[in-house]
Amino acid sequence: MQVTMCPERAIMEHVTSRWAVLVLQLLSNGEAWRFSELRRELEIVSEKMLTQTLRTLERDGFVHREVRPVIPPHVEYTLTPLGKGAANHLVALAQWIKANHPEVAQAQQHYDAS
Amino acid sequence: MQVTMCPERAIMEHVTSRWAVLVLQLLSNGEAWRFSELRRELEIVSEKMLTQTLRTLERDGFVHREVRPVIPPHVEYTLTPLGKGAANHLVALAQWIKANHPEVAQAQQHYDAS
Repeated sequence: MQVTMCPERAIMEHVTSRWAVLVLQLLSNGEAWRFSELRRELEIVSEKMLTQTLRTLERDGFVHREVRPVIPPHVEYTLTPLGKGAANHLVALAQWIKANHPEVAQAQQHYDAS
Repeated sequence: MQVTMCPERAIMEHVTSRWAVLVLQLLSNGEAWRFSELRRELEIVSEKMLTQTLRTLERDGFVHREVRPVIPPHVEYTLTPLGKGAANHLVALAQWIKANHPEVAQAQQHYDAS
């Protein structure tokens, strides 16, 4: 059986959580993102949820958090090499969805009409 | 920006929902699964959640639901070719996690100790 179990299953849940999916995709452009930039891009995420998501990803070693000692100080987030590996799979999945969503929309219409 | 938006974002949420991630991986072995077999394999899923997950995946065109006219009748679930495409990415991600979870565990220990 191919279903990942603990601790793999827990990591899978972190990576595929609603906001982690999007955060990892954003960070996969290789740039450093500020908290406020991530929040603006994700639109409806609450401050608390984004903080929690970033903390989980940092704890798993996927995201690097760096306090920039400027005035005023701010925090930047980047992908680690490990995080890049995980993010690549989500980017690939997102690209697959982008290419196939018309077929999914067609299936939904067919389902709803039956 | 690479984050998928509606309707792609909705499809992403279906595919990466807690139980869909696991159901798609199970079905990716190419066999027909009964509801009871899926439920047994997933252990802690409720009947209601599994029903809802399968219905969403069926509506998106990822899963084919077939009523077998035997006595007593039963229902079997298989991946469609479209579903196979989505599932492949989850299987790849699961394999990546399987290969890298020791590194994640190490990062977690480091984080918790700091």
